[in-house]
Amino acid sequence: MARAYNFSAGPAILPESVLREAAEEMLDYKGTGMSVMEMSHRSKVFEEIIENAEKTLRELMGIPNNYKVLFLQGGASQQFAMIPMNLMKNRVADYVNTGQWTKRAIAEARMYGEVNIIASSEDRTFSYIPEVKDLKISDDADYVYICHNNTVYGTKYNQIPEIGDKILVADMSSDILSEPVGVEKYGLIFAGVQKNVGPAGVVVVIIREDLITEDVLSGTPTMLRYKIHADNQSLYNTPPAYGIYICGKVFKWIKDIGGLEAMKKINQEKAGIVYDFLDKSRMFKGTVVKKDRSLMNVTFVTDSQELDAKFVKEAKAEGFENLKGHRTVGGMRASIYNAMPLEGVKALVSFMQKFEEENRK
Amino acid sequence: MARAYNFSAGPAILPESVLREAAEEMLDYKGTGMSVMEMSHRSKVFEEIIENAEKTLRELMGIPNNYKVLFLQGGASQQFAMIPMNLMKNRVADYVNTGQWTKRAIAEARMYGEVNIIASSEDRTFSYIPEVKDLKISDDADYVYICHNNTVYGTKYNQIPEIGDKILVADMSSDILSEPVGVEKYGLIFAGVQKNVGPAGVVVVIIREDLITEDVLSGTPTMLRYKIHADNQSLYNTPPAYGIYICGKVFKWIKDIGGLEAMKKINQEKAGIVYDFLDKSRMFKGTVVKKDRSLMNVTFVTDSQELDAKFVKEAKAEGFENLKGHRTVGGMRASIYNAMPLEGVKALVSFMQKFEEENRK
Repeated sequence: MARAYNFSAGPAILPESVLREAAEEMLDYKGTGMSVMEMSHRSKVFEEIIENAEKTLRELMGIPNNYKVLFLQGGASQQFAMIPMNLMKNRVADYVNTGQWTKRAIAEARMYGEVNIIASSEDRTFSYIPEVKDLKISDDADYVYICHNNTVYGTKYNQIPEIGDKILVADMSSDILSEPVGVEKYGLIFAGVQKNVGPAGVVVVIIREDLITEDVLSGTPTMLRYKIHADNQSLYNTPPAYGIYICGKVFKWIKDIGGLEAMKKINQEKAGIVYDFLDKSRMFKGTVVKKDRSLMNVTFVTDSQELDAKFVKEAKAEGFENLKGHRTVGGMRASIYNAMPLEGVKALVSFMQKFEEENRK
Repeated sequence: MARAYNFSAGPAILPESVLREAAEEMLDYKGTGMSVMEMSHRSKVFEEIIENAEKTLRELMGIPNNYKVLFLQGGASQQFAMIPMNLMKNRVADYVNTGQWTKRAIAEARMYGEVNIIASSEDRTFSYIPEVKDLKISDDADYVYICHNNTVYGTKYNQIPEIGDKILVADMSSDILSEPVGVEKYGLIFAGVQKNVGPAGVVVVIIREDLITEDVLSGTPTMLRYKIHADNQSLYNTPPAYGIYICGKVFKWIKDIGGLEAMKKINQEKAGIVYDFLDKSRMFKGTVVKKDRSLMNVTFVTDSQELDAKFVKEAKAEGFENLKGHRTVGGMRASIYNAMPLEGVKALVSFMQKFEEENRK
């Protein structure tokens, strides 16, 4: 059986070469006679795996020396609590509301302090990114929070908010490593890896060292303190070792492609093919304001729900998987993460053209 | 290269047949054209994987219908906080201190309430399980906490504490599925899977339904509430899907062996071979009181640290991996989890005999 064209929003497609290597090494990683799943996390072999993963990620993203890289558990959902528990010194934070995931982050942060929504795109179903100039940043805000790419709605920040000397916190779960970002502009970046990097169960946190303190909210569990993980190089307890190993392979795969500049070009080409078609099509329409379109999640609709459903069904029959839009918004969504090959995108657009011709009224 | 005899305390050896299947399915799980790592956790295929895993676990352990099975993240370390945050209604709990992991659990619980250590084996380096009769259970204790098998020290409860109508909470990270346990005697059982079940990054929680309530300590993060996970069948957020898939295969492997009664017999035979040798040897000595010996972690020493080190080194050269005792106690430890084949144990004992002959004074 051929590999599917998997447009899932996450967990999502991974590079075939990475999976091949993982399969080959499953019973015997480099002559150790063990799977990476079976290794002590305190062994030299695993230490090399996690150190190399971090090193490659640092290279790819140009992470400055005064930032720590942590490989944690609990996904983005746990970061929604961990961030306020660790960073809310004044118990105030500003959030930009751009969809379902910022809503969850906001609700969670409200358990710990005052949350001001300084901008929102809820008025038009989150189909755009709010204006990021002249935001009313709260004087005593401990940080400003954004979701850099919104998986459900297909929007993305092309310019980050102007927030003066405040700390910027960003959820990059669905676009980390899709293009270069200036890490130094952020206080904290986090990403559940299951969209663009690896298997679910690992969350990468990139945090500026001065934000790692013992001064956390009372009652913060040990496992939810950045300091404990930073002090122990993510090995305070047993880490999600196999997931980290796969992430390391994906980092290497991106490096071999040429790094994030090269990755960005490929992603622009891939997304461009779909958006160009959407802009020409008389049946399919993109749902997002052009300037805020995501490179990773392309959302679109026809003018009828019946036709949407027919499209998704027929696409599936042709081997295009997971094109249904998020259950909360409907329509269609093609998630075209780093690992989606160009040919997958071309095949999808060909199929859309064919579908349009066959179903023209 | 042959597979190593891996005596690691965790992450630890997994059944070879499970790893083979995983390798074969890596690029294409059952004709889906996807790896399990790449699948939406909301897909039918993955739902079947997680449902089957739970079903098999329920069968194996005879889990009553009024218990929920949860697959969570954060390991045992996160449970150390999650348990008091969810169960400490009176803010009082009783703990039996049997080693490093109960110490950590106690320290964590003390952040949330009063913790009484009702018994301890610290006086003799945790080399035994304290008497479990006539314990002074606190009247208002919300629960009584034990660690059922102590990985570091090689001890195990062969009889559980008499605690009247109190709720018994047990950490079974290092002996879950090694033998039958009466689940109905417990309010909550948890186990990080990376010792006896699967890859690090999944923790199994078996919890009686009446203990799952919204009445948790103020400030408990959403991800640390049992109710949210129970209400969503462990799919509130993206679960550690690949790890759950491997756990499911291991559950099936145990079922095919004949279930937990069969597993127990095998484990008794394997552990018996090592303990019998230790009891006869004039060089090696078991460190644990006989009646409290673990079936999973066999700890032993010679009378000199130099000889210990020599043994570990020479054993490694012969393909016996990870026999060094925990860094906090020294000596040796052979972890002989379910997946360690009988031949591995026999080979180890042969090697110990040979070493003893060669190094006799």
